[in-house]
Amino acid sequence: MVDILHRIGVTASPDDVYAALTTIDGLSKWWTEDTEGDSGVGGVIRFRFVPGGFDMKVLEAQPAERVLWEVVDGPEEWIGTQVAFELKQEDGFTIVLFRHEGWKEPVEFMYHCNTKWAIFLMSLKKLVETGKGDPAPHDVMISNWH
Amino acid sequence: MVDILHRIGVTASPDDVYAALTTIDGLSKWWTEDTEGDSGVGGVIRFRFVPGGFDMKVLEAQPAERVLWEVVDGPEEWIGTQVAFELKQEDGFTIVLFRHEGWKEPVEFMYHCNTKWAIFLMSLKKLVETGKGDPAPHDVMISNWH
Repeated sequence: MVDILHRIGVTASPDDVYAALTTIDGLSKWWTEDTEGDSGVGGVIRFRFVPGGFDMKVLEAQPAERVLWEVVDGPEEWIGTQVAFELKQEDGFTIVLFRHEGWKEPVEFMYHCNTKWAIFLMSLKKLVETGKGDPAPHDVMISNWH
Repeated sequence: MVDILHRIGVTASPDDVYAALTTIDGLSKWWTEDTEGDSGVGGVIRFRFVPGGFDMKVLEAQPAERVLWEVVDGPEEWIGTQVAFELKQEDGFTIVLFRHEGWKEPVEFMYHCNTKWAIFLMSLKKLVETGKGDPAPHDVMISNWH
């Protein structure tokens, strides 16, 4: 098993970050504009991009503390993996500890997804700090795989 | 053992990317301006940032294909780890596969370094595509840990 791990700090409250992670409106402003579904615990959120997308079942949502999703549909390498966001406060920042856990193999697609998660987490940071993120299809292109 | 893995694609030649990875001038234009030392195989390159730095021994340098460093001084978590850049061509891009291998534990500092490597690899991409990167101390701040 291989995990993707990231850490950013944002000058916004944990409540604001939590809202960006647990509402369709918030999610559509930093990851992909094409976001639909039920963002409550037990619901499934459908994230779509030009080449495809991901369906995430919301397993946990603890206000201002923790969000956990399981990938229930999408690319084969993603199915069954989990995406966790943990929030804490430190030095006046809200720290987001991110994990995309349970990759079976460190395939080249995982390298790509790791770099791309960093880009989207910086979009989350920009959204909560300035009110405007860079969700797909306006996201920063990193390679031929977009 | 835990590894950091990234993938970017740049619209520049493998030779140009290789030069940015194997010359003091190139390295100082995307990772940190304070870069000194011997970038030849067997040499040690000293990268310095405001809070500290890293000494990298160059283990391999295959033109336009592969660069491998070993961390010989720096933060305790980094010592003994290896940093690899592999280059290949695909769809008109030079693809950079990056690995920072051999972390003993997935500590919070590793989360930070992973996100920060993405930022610096995007600086490498910007350098080889536009002639100007964002090396430290002009790098993008991602948190209270810089």
